Amino acid sequence: MTFGFLIFPGLEELDLVGPWEMISMWSKHLQGPETCLTVAQTRDPVICAKGLSINPSAAFSGCPQLDYLLVPGGQGTREQVNNDVLIRFVAEQARGCRATLSVCTGSFILHRAGLLAGRRATTHWSSLARLAELGGVEVVQERVVRDGNVWTAAGVSAGIDLALAFIESVAGETVAGKVQFGTEYFPSSRRYGDLHQSPQAPAYLRRC
Amino acid sequence: MTFGFLIFPGLEELDLVGPWEMISMWSKHLQGPETCLTVAQTRDPVICAKGLSINPSAAFSGCPQLDYLLVPGGQGTREQVNNDVLIRFVAEQARGCRATLSVCTGSFILHRAGLLAGRRATTHWSSLARLAELGGVEVVQERVVRDGNVWTAAGVSAGIDLALAFIESVAGETVAGKVQFGTEYFPSSRRYGDLHQSPQAPAYLRRC
Repeated sequence: MTFGFLIFPGLEELDLVGPWEMISMWSKHLQGPETCLTVAQTRDPVICAKGLSINPSAAFSGCPQLDYLLVPGGQGTREQVNNDVLIRFVAEQARGCRATLSVCTGSFILHRAGLLAGRRATTHWSSLARLAELGGVEVVQERVVRDGNVWTAAGVSAGIDLALAFIESVAGETVAGKVQFGTEYFPSSRRYGDLHQSPQAPAYLRRC
Repeated sequence: MTFGFLIFPGLEELDLVGPWEMISMWSKHLQGPETCLTVAQTRDPVICAKGLSINPSAAFSGCPQLDYLLVPGGQGTREQVNNDVLIRFVAEQARGCRATLSVCTGSFILHRAGLLAGRRATTHWSSLARLAELGGVEVVQERVVRDGNVWTAAGVSAGIDLALAFIESVAGETVAGKVQFGTEYFPSSRRYGDLHQSPQAPAYLRRC
């Protein structure tokens, strides 16, 4: 099994590396996918939204058929939805994938590739209305959404929760628990201030 | 202000990018440090523990005096504690820093650089005993530990909680809340299985 992580200029760093950590821990220590790849249009370094510079492990042209594909979000998605080469890569890979996943505004790339048609999906709280306006998708205000073999997560850090839920679905709760323990992912429940109760906050937060 | 993130071969990806995301969000949108740098011994690409390849933004030789320095952990720390050039860089920078921080086994690098002498500190649950055996440090089983201007976090994902607590200490709760909201860091409290109650689990987890 090969798990691919799409990378492109302006991706949000934690959208990518949160799931990368969980999936690659599963891969390396718990008999998860044999290979984890970062894949970009070319092999040039990719500069992320906050300036981190990452070297892809594969270019589209040399990328094997993936079993799983994850698409991060970030400011760069606003440009990439108009990148036909990237959208075609996602659409074609997804046809052969067991599952396709996105984090944050990565869902706009899935939408453009036709993967959200008639499905429930989510995105960062600040982009929920914008995704709904595109039409052809049922936008829900949950942290992690699964609709068949398409998984979407809310903003940035929600990709970590997505990844653990995904690992459980493929490999079971015991394996997900070992990844959680290995990465010591038992986050503080501290809430700084009260923005999670503001009108902009997504429904899953306001009902807590 | 300049916030530097030490990078070296074999660092654990999320140890670095969790705090990077929070600090760089603060930097870019909320008047945090003007500059966030990744700094390595040379400008060559750094291959992380799970294979991600990152290009440093500065080498030790060209690095300005930092105001804050964060040291991630990972398997690579076992070699880096014996890298005199790296340890000297950390020790010398820390003298001029307002705060020095580590995530996971990054605390072993702080220890070797003399920064934990007589202080309370923590590390990944699987390395707590090993850190205590080094002596000269009071090892505590908390998720985030502050002792004066030295901050240490527990394993991997704990760096995110460390970063928010640190931002609050410097810029106040409102700013930390905006970073939390921007990164949608309201994690699931789901616990997969019961390893958090096992004898190996750190005290902060077992008492939950």
